Amino acid sequence: MQKLVLIRHGESVWNQENRFTGWTDVDLSDGGLQQAISAGKLLAKNGYTFDVGFTSVLKRSIKTMHFVLEQLDHLWIPIHKSWRLNERFYGALQGLNKDETIEKYGEEQVQKWRRDPHEHPPAITEQDDRFPGHYLRYNDLTYRELPLTENLSETMDRALPFWHESIVPAIRENKKVIICAHGNSLRALIQYIENLSDEDVAKLDIPTATPWVYELDDRLNCVKHYYLK
Amino acid sequence: MQKLVLIRHGESVWNQENRFTGWTDVDLSDGGLQQAISAGKLLAKNGYTFDVGFTSVLKRSIKTMHFVLEQLDHLWIPIHKSWRLNERFYGALQGLNKDETIEKYGEEQVQKWRRDPHEHPPAITEQDDRFPGHYLRYNDLTYRELPLTENLSETMDRALPFWHESIVPAIRENKKVIICAHGNSLRALIQYIENLSDEDVAKLDIPTATPWVYELDDRLNCVKHYYLK
Repeated sequence: MQKLVLIRHGESVWNQENRFTGWTDVDLSDGGLQQAISAGKLLAKNGYTFDVGFTSVLKRSIKTMHFVLEQLDHLWIPIHKSWRLNERFYGALQGLNKDETIEKYGEEQVQKWRRDPHEHPPAITEQDDRFPGHYLRYNDLTYRELPLTENLSETMDRALPFWHESIVPAIRENKKVIICAHGNSLRALIQYIENLSDEDVAKLDIPTATPWVYELDDRLNCVKHYYLK
Repeated sequence: MQKLVLIRHGESVWNQENRFTGWTDVDLSDGGLQQAISAGKLLAKNGYTFDVGFTSVLKRSIKTMHFVLEQLDHLWIPIHKSWRLNERFYGALQGLNKDETIEKYGEEQVQKWRRDPHEHPPAITEQDDRFPGHYLRYNDLTYRELPLTENLSETMDRALPFWHESIVPAIRENKKVIICAHGNSLRALIQYIENLSDEDVAKLDIPTATPWVYELDDRLNCVKHYYLK
């Protein structure tokens, strides 16, 4: 039996302002930073140790990982960062206030964008400042990998190769793994690990900075899962 | 021409207390943390960008790197951590106050321990709490790699393989490299890069959290070097 810990980043400044964030590199709020520290203390209190960590290339996740590991006295473990663990790319919704978006497009449409796995939020253009092609950190992505918008299913499609190629091999080597990522990239991993239906995953709400523990058998089947609280 | 930036960690709590630190995993002082932030701001103001970072497995370096990169909005770059960039292992001197050590052993002997490349500080035993074999983070080291004491020449011998095998290939791929490490591991790299004599290197005092810039030619010869201030 092997444990795997997933953790969503602490509250960000835009979570606080109730805005769609996506790949916008928003910082943790002061509260979010405190949440990360608390999560680290909780893991330490429960005797968790880790051999390797995986996170996105967005600072709210990287900083959450840093402050969690600092509490565990584990800053020295290798951390692998990948755009594949980024939040879902929310297209032209990025930056918009969620309530205003509901007023403008209606509750039903916004709910579809948020939870229907095949529904695309409005796309940006390549000229848009939010286009990832403008940013150094996405230089290694192919043209097709640079999103203009992303539905949940596409988020899953780009997150899973990282699960299979980088995270699973570490687990197979009996390494204790911590993943710090985002609501929708974690949703993608959880859907795959637990083999959930689209309906089940749509209902899943992942709280910020709360360690989500999997106990996995030798074939990486989920034997048990729970929040550490 | 390619730039390479070396930076010694910010002031640690034991720098402040004037104690021999070595591999003891002492935290940054509040002032040291501020130094790291200032170094990051200085690099940002001068337009530096980086593709990859290298640091030790000691938190004073890892945290310095983190706060430098945060100022550069560069938290997303890959960071490789290795014990080979650790401070020199100071044996039984680790934890002792430097002035008290001088009182006990005499100025001349302490100066020898600090600057003579072949002089070993008193060794610890494997039963000592300070023995790295007791720590998870050194699990991958072979028995022979676990130090009981280290002279400067041995620090160089274990730092240089990391230079050759990990850092040089990154520079050769035209990656912009930042190294955050320690007084003596940096001294080892500087001695090698500049081909300095033992006498010259003994005179070298590396200030905390001050970016040391190399301009290197295609064969990684040093064309120019200076502190960024």
